Amino acid sequence: MANHVDTLDRLFVALADPTRRQVIRRLGRGPASVTELSRPFPITLPSFMKHVGVLERTGLISTTKSGRVRTCELNRDRLDLVDGWLAEQREIWETRTDRLESLVTQEERP
Amino acid sequence: MANHVDTLDRLFVALADPTRRQVIRRLGRGPASVTELSRPFPITLPSFMKHVGVLERTGLISTTKSGRVRTCELNRDRLDLVDGWLAEQREIWETRTDRLESLVTQEERP
Repeated sequence: MANHVDTLDRLFVALADPTRRQVIRRLGRGPASVTELSRPFPITLPSFMKHVGVLERTGLISTTKSGRVRTCELNRDRLDLVDGWLAEQREIWETRTDRLESLVTQEERP
Repeated sequence: MANHVDTLDRLFVALADPTRRQVIRRLGRGPASVTELSRPFPITLPSFMKHVGVLERTGLISTTKSGRVRTCELNRDRLDLVDGWLAEQREIWETRTDRLESLVTQEERP
């Protein structure tokens, strides 16, 4: 449980950055090299590598090196954890809404 | 667009804390006073108020004061923004999966 909380903390931190969110979006279309991924961003390669490191440590992406090329790939199951948390919240609201609705219906009954 | 990016950044930061996520979960069941909300947490009231402040500044919750009681309420539309971002990513993957599937089908055709 503590580990799950910690994982969610780190996932939300990783997603709280526009560069990292752009990288995730790009990798949704398929694997890409670090060089290709870094191209749209007006930052140095070492700065970009820090973002790659954050994403890799949370497990949001995996990287493999072949020769001089490091290729990144998205791990969707990590985003599923975030999705799961949001789904839990929705379930709580919906249970509440259903309960309120059933109260209203009971009151409206003659 | 820049504003939307900034809002997402702040939303993800706000969600990257277990106390704040617990507060959101509790408020999913309905509004509650700060005193009631703070009860499960082994932290001082000033520390707890900092978390309330973060949630309020991102718009995830609203608070109203009546006499000495401050009541908090969840704003679901803010979580919908996070949900929307995740849904966008899913759409990108699914488009890709569909494309891969149609390629495979084409190759299998006699």
